Amino acid sequence: MPGGDRLHRGGALLSGFGAAPTPALLLDAERLTRNVARVGDRVRALGARLRPHIKTHKCVEVARLQVAGQFGGITVSTLAEATAFAAHGFTDITYAVPVEPGKFAAALALAQRGVRLHLLTDDPAVPGPLAEAARAAGVRVDVFVKVDCGYHRCGVDPEGPALRELVQRIGERTQLRFAGLLTHAGHSYHARGADAVRAVATQEREVMRAATAWLAASGVTVPVVSVGSTPTITHVDHLDGVHEVRAGNYAFFDATQVRIGSCTLDDCVLTVLASVVHRDRTRGRVILDAGAIALSKDPGARELDPDAGFGRVLDLDGRDLGLRLRSLSQEHGEVPVPDAALLDRLPVGARLRIAVNHSCLTAAQHEAYLVHEGSRIVDRWAIHRGW
Amino acid sequence: MPGGDRLHRGGALLSGFGAAPTPALLLDAERLTRNVARVGDRVRALGARLRPHIKTHKCVEVARLQVAGQFGGITVSTLAEATAFAAHGFTDITYAVPVEPGKFAAALALAQRGVRLHLLTDDPAVPGPLAEAARAAGVRVDVFVKVDCGYHRCGVDPEGPALRELVQRIGERTQLRFAGLLTHAGHSYHARGADAVRAVATQEREVMRAATAWLAASGVTVPVVSVGSTPTITHVDHLDGVHEVRAGNYAFFDATQVRIGSCTLDDCVLTVLASVVHRDRTRGRVILDAGAIALSKDPGARELDPDAGFGRVLDLDGRDLGLRLRSLSQEHGEVPVPDAALLDRLPVGARLRIAVNHSCLTAAQHEAYLVHEGSRIVDRWAIHRGW
Repeated sequence: MPGGDRLHRGGALLSGFGAAPTPALLLDAERLTRNVARVGDRVRALGARLRPHIKTHKCVEVARLQVAGQFGGITVSTLAEATAFAAHGFTDITYAVPVEPGKFAAALALAQRGVRLHLLTDDPAVPGPLAEAARAAGVRVDVFVKVDCGYHRCGVDPEGPALRELVQRIGERTQLRFAGLLTHAGHSYHARGADAVRAVATQEREVMRAATAWLAASGVTVPVVSVGSTPTITHVDHLDGVHEVRAGNYAFFDATQVRIGSCTLDDCVLTVLASVVHRDRTRGRVILDAGAIALSKDPGARELDPDAGFGRVLDLDGRDLGLRLRSLSQEHGEVPVPDAALLDRLPVGARLRIAVNHSCLTAAQHEAYLVHEGSRIVDRWAIHRGW
Repeated sequence: MPGGDRLHRGGALLSGFGAAPTPALLLDAERLTRNVARVGDRVRALGARLRPHIKTHKCVEVARLQVAGQFGGITVSTLAEATAFAAHGFTDITYAVPVEPGKFAAALALAQRGVRLHLLTDDPAVPGPLAEAARAAGVRVDVFVKVDCGYHRCGVDPEGPALRELVQRIGERTQLRFAGLLTHAGHSYHARGADAVRAVATQEREVMRAATAWLAASGVTVPVVSVGSTPTITHVDHLDGVHEVRAGNYAFFDATQVRIGSCTLDDCVLTVLASVVHRDRTRGRVILDAGAIALSKDPGARELDPDAGFGRVLDLDGRDLGLRLRSLSQEHGEVPVPDAALLDRLPVGARLRIAVNHSCLTAAQHEAYLVHEGSRIVDRWAIHRGW
């Protein structure tokens, strides 16, 4: 641990990990840049456009890196994200949760402020009231129909009557523009290895192509076909028939993506900096000040790796110490350390880094990232939370 | 759902649930008042003083209710909580995580501002550097020795040489005052039913009495014996030899406490207001806009109830609908609804309330409580998060 380091939030000098208060969320700038370039290039090479999902990071600075050289659109999971990003100059936003009437007013307020807002629905009862609300607000909005490509969370049957009915209801309303078809292959998170993920990616693409063809048969043109998940964009063969990719987690990756096969541990951007607050030589373990709030209680890819615990423990240089967070309480994390020599090196006050299980949920626990290059903290980026 | 309701944050009119944006964290004011009175009265009747642990709610208004008629001290789990509460007039604060050197400066800054700050340690390497830092800061601080009463998370052996050594090292330093012995019977959360919890509570008390006697044999007087957990204060027989109780969860309770036997579902204060965003008649279920961020991913008392899921689903009046949140993703929660007639009553936009598994973790996901009396929202209270 470097001595004499000092962290001045908002000031000029932001240096090593040693001076940062713990727990803190560290963001590796070099890895972020690499991940963003890799997936941005890949989507371009596949002939699609990238509309990154910013729910993973909720951070304007990260989103700016992601849209550089892309068309500028983003995807959000909450209207609070949409509002915060609109205030920072993002004007083409897809709110990728089916919209419900309680959110019409907040969504349409964004459209009134000049945001090109894309909403989505999979329910025939929504277009009518949404159009009425849009008329009252004096705006038009783009509406995607959400399609179920096999994840079975939301979305209409890709070849059932509900799809045609929905497209028709949207088309009947002058306040609504039919934006296209949108899906999310969330079941890729349950796949194991590249071949299994590729099978899901193929399904995601082919279901959308079939739905597009089925609508074409009744004379309906689909302006945009939008798909997206980090595992599927990593392993998909081609994207013929797909216009837009909405991956998000790839900016950060995490231990879950390592298990799925989307990346290696060396691609993971987020770590939680933590301090030892208790050392127990009798039981061979330490307690850290990173608990369920600092990390989230996401069990990670436990179905892929029962021993995953709540995070891998790294040293300050990012080297895997072979330790795992076994249990979490609110502000405590327990790490078994069977090696007595290693335990000697972990007195109260020693600092460690935790490679997180699920970067999206961990990020949402914090108000900011400490951005680092090597062990030097170079910036602090805000996280826009809430609803 | 009442029509025409409007929620004006920070304004005069805060009315029914219908107008609140979802997801939102609801706090039942009547239940809170009842819980606070019940446990406050119980601790008083048992002859101890109450130093409520505010980590559960991180809310100044709730803490003010808890300390009314008590001596005014509180317990915190982070220095951010300590700082926020000190700024709101709380001057007697115990930071109940073993202090490590990286937090000396922030802790001592509170003491410099006139807070009577109680720190705790279980490590013989801490008192020396802490005393030096206190000397440099020109303050004295109170230091508890953390004792392990059987939870085995932190704390020294209650009758081992480390206890005497720590007390001696604290006593040698003029900048440190030996505050007493402190323990937390966290293993009460793994107990099942009143008898099992009472056994843990007895252990918590008797271990502390034995440690006190053991120190007395070497001429050391223990100023304060501090214990505390919500299950143990609920079921303990008596508190002879104990001065202070640091329970916290009792203000809100939650589904986990129901399973442990600390309360009934009608005592639980927090619910998350959520809207249906998707209805699937084929699979018999709805998707809500309350996911892993709005609720936390705490599995609750799954060891006590494997079917607990991520929360019970209530109607707007708080009646249990017999439904459970089966799975969570970031902003989606899945609720199986096998009853077709009930599913008919849950269109997109319908509102439900989720009784939370773990109130402490759910509260930490939100920036404020919407305080309600019946279905009328009467106030909005801030939650002081972070580190």
